[in-house]
Formats: sequence, structure tokens, C-alpha cells
Amino acid sequence: MEIIESKENKLIKFLKKLKQKKYRDAEGQFLAEGHKFLDYDTVPEIIIVREDVKDLYIEKLDRFECKKILVNEKLFQELSSQENSQGIIIVYSKKNNDLNSLSNNLVILDDVADPGNLGTIIRLCDATNFKDIILTKGTVDAYNEKVIRATMGSILNVNLFYLEKQEIIKLLKENNYSIIATYLDKEALPYNKIKLKEKNAVIFGNEGRGICDEFVSISDCKTVIPILSNTESLNVAVASAIILYKFREIEGLI
Amino acid sequence: MEIIESKENKLIKFLKKLKQKKYRDAEGQFLAEGHKFLDYDTVPEIIIVREDVKDLYIEKLDRFECKKILVNEKLFQELSSQENSQGIIIVYSKKNNDLNSLSNNLVILDDVADPGNLGTIIRLCDATNFKDIILTKGTVDAYNEKVIRATMGSILNVNLFYLEKQEIIKLLKENNYSIIATYLDKEALPYNKIKLKEKNAVIFGNEGRGICDEFVSISDCKTVIPILSNTESLNVAVASAIILYKFREIEGLI
Repeated sequence: MEIIESKENKLIKFLKKLKQKKYRDAEGQFLAEGHKFLDYDTVPEIIIVREDVKDLYIEKLDRFECKKILVNEKLFQELSSQENSQGIIIVYSKKNNDLNSLSNNLVILDDVADPGNLGTIIRLCDATNFKDIILTKGTVDAYNEKVIRATMGSILNVNLFYLEKQEIIKLLKENNYSIIATYLDKEALPYNKIKLKEKNAVIFGNEGRGICDEFVSISDCKTVIPILSNTESLNVAVASAIILYKFREIEGLI
Repeated sequence: MEIIESKENKLIKFLKKLKQKKYRDAEGQFLAEGHKFLDYDTVPEIIIVREDVKDLYIEKLDRFECKKILVNEKLFQELSSQENSQGIIIVYSKKNNDLNSLSNNLVILDDVADPGNLGTIIRLCDATNFKDIILTKGTVDAYNEKVIRATMGSILNVNLFYLEKQEIIKLLKENNYSIIATYLDKEALPYNKIKLKEKNAVIFGNEGRGICDEFVSISDCKTVIPILSNTESLNVAVASAIILYKFREIEGLI
């Protein structure tokens, strides 16, 4: 394992840059922190190991024949974004996903802003097997460290597509998806009454504003999660959970 | 409206102390930030208003005849815990809830650790009308500012009881609650097959460890949310959402 000791090292400088979206976009790579990611089969580009944990995770580290570098605690701190880090940071390449092989059931996220919410939704999409997630360009970057952390590894199991709203509408219409907009309107259909078609796309909106008018106007069905008290709304990750599980239940998978 | 300009003022010092759990416990009061809280009927003890927003929220401020104080931006910053604050901080007294008037359906939280998760669950309990929430003493403090923020005001609509695990078990058993433990075990009953009794208590566990053995062993039913991929688990707020909404659906309320 290569040992790096200087923070002036070119690779260390490169890794630090991956904390910024513009470099992640340019390099097509991102950072994930924690040994849990090594349980997935995705092959890392580089694994950074803090010297005190190198013997602790031998088995996990030996699974992959990628570049591995060993750093001391001080240098690791420069790269880590976690208070109680497990001493493992991994560099992955973003997947090249193909819009021509989308599955029949899609999740669309319209400007979801909170990294924790996005990460939780990605984890949920993985758990419910909604593997294709389309995100408007206004949605927070899924390769942001806070999002990655909240996905608990599920980022490696899903396919992400960042598109403009108009591209999304064109894609859904041209491919005959039935568009289900989740909507805070008592006139909308309760979520447990939705009818699924052969191809379905469920849209979840921004935390404050909900779904944009363009999406609402082209939707085939508006659905709502009834609220049984005088509170106004649900957290978007919570709303997605209720709807995606109901979706799988209607399909008879649960 | 009283104007306070010095950070040496006794009241300002008192407000700062409420950021710490030990003072919240001692004083029985807590801080909530944002004008949204003023939409609820709970009467505040004190409202702190940043001078630039006092005309903006006149209507909301006039709803309550409590103590109101005006501070400048610098002093407000000392009290605020939010980056883009709306300029309103409210001091509330904790409610004195009565364990003798619990409703027939309870939510029990076993050592939930993340403030965002707890806040989201409280908001969800409010939305699904599970108004009585029992929390183990190991659960994060619900009056912590991050929790309060994530509740979006729902903290004012629910009844919270912090108890020792043994007290919770005694309470549930003596009052004939059917105890439903949410559990990551494929042998457990899928959540959409649970049978509700006259009185039910649903337990959700810690983010890492799940539910403790004591609770599992005294439960009447273990339930699981099936996962359709090779991912391991769901976020606890997401799991609560799926189960509490299913609960209300089984009851025919949705």
C-alpha cells in the first residue's frame, strides 16, 4: 500500500477538490466515507486508509485490486467530512447510465434541496427497487458527501440522471409513462387508490414549493397522502416512503 | 415591545442557556425558531423579534399577549441557530402531560439518536394523529433546536413522555397494550399483515442497533418492512412513515 505523508501531494490535492461539485462534475468521480461502501460490489478507483485501521478492515480492503493509499491521522482529517470517521474514504467513478434502457417504473425528483432528504430517498428507492431516478437540474448534487452518507451505500445501486425539466417531460411523454404527481391537495386521489399502468413515473417535489406547475399540468394523475391532523405537510422523504411502498404493495410485491 | 441591546442582559443570558439540555430540563422551557410556530395556538412565554422583521409579522405577533422583546441583528445572531433565520425566536414551556390519559395507540421510540430523524418522526406522528409519543431516556432530547426545527411546529401538537425502559414495559403491560416491535428479520410479519388490537403500541428502534432485546422479548408481534433489493435497512423515519400510515389504513381512516 502506497504511503502518502505530505498534504502537498498531488493526489491529496485532487481528493480535496472532489469535495466541490464542479470538480466532481469535471472528473466524473466522487468520495464516499465509511467501510460499509466496501460491502458493495462496485470497484473503487482509490481507497484511502487511515493508518490505525489498516489491519481492522483487511478482508474488505482485499476484495478490490484498486489503488490503495495509507495516510496518517492528520492527513486523513484533511479529507474526512465526518466527526467519528471509520478511517476509510473511497473514490468511485460515477456510472454512465443509459437513458435508452430505463425501467418501467421511474422516480422523478423535482428540485429536492436537502442533502439528507435526497440521500434518504435514494436509500429508499434502492430498497423498493426503483433503480432509475431522474433528478431535475435544480436538485441538490447526489454526489455531495452528505447525500452519499445518507444513502448508506445505496448510491452504488441506483442509476441517476440529471436532466432539464423540459427534457424530462419529453422523455416521459415520448415513452408513454403514466405520470403521477404527488400533490398537497385534498382534491387529489388518496395514494392508496392510485391505478398503475404499464409504465409509471412518480414525481416528488421540493421541500418548500412542492412540484412545479409544468409537471403538475402534464401529469396523468395527482395523488395526495391524507393528513389526519391540522399539520400542513409531510417531509418529502417520508412522503416518498409511503407512496413507493404502496406502489409495490399495489403491484402485489409485498 | 421591550428593546434589549446588551448581550449582558439577564434575559439574553437566560435564553442562551436554553440551548443546553440541562437548562431546558431545569427550566421546563425550550426555544423554537421561525414564524411558522406562531401559526399554532400554543401560547409562547416570550417572543424574540429581530428589529428588521417586526413589521413583517405584525399579525402573527398580535395573536399572543405574551412578553415580546425586540433585539438588533447582532444580538439576534447570538441566539439564532439558523443560517437564514426569519428573525423570530420563541420560548415555550414544555407541556405537563399526563400518563393517566394516554390514548389507545402509542408510538414508542427506543434510543433514536439523530435529531433530524426524531423531528421528522414527531411531524409524522402529528400527521397520523399518534399524539402520544413515549421516548426512552436514551433518545435524543426532543427540545434540541435541530429536532424542533425538523418538527416544523408539530412539537406543539404532540405529547412527549421520557421514561426508563422498565417504566415503559410496566406501563404497556399494566394497561394491556398490544406491543408491536418493528424488526429487521425476514421471519417477522410483513407490516401490511399486522392485526391491530383495541390498544396498540408500536416501537421503533435506534438507527444502528434497532430495538433493544428487552422490548423485542416482551413484544406481542414482530413486524418487518420487506426490502426488495440487497440493501440492508431503511432509515427509521422512513420506516415509521410506512408503518404508521399502514396502521391508519388498516383502521380504515385512509
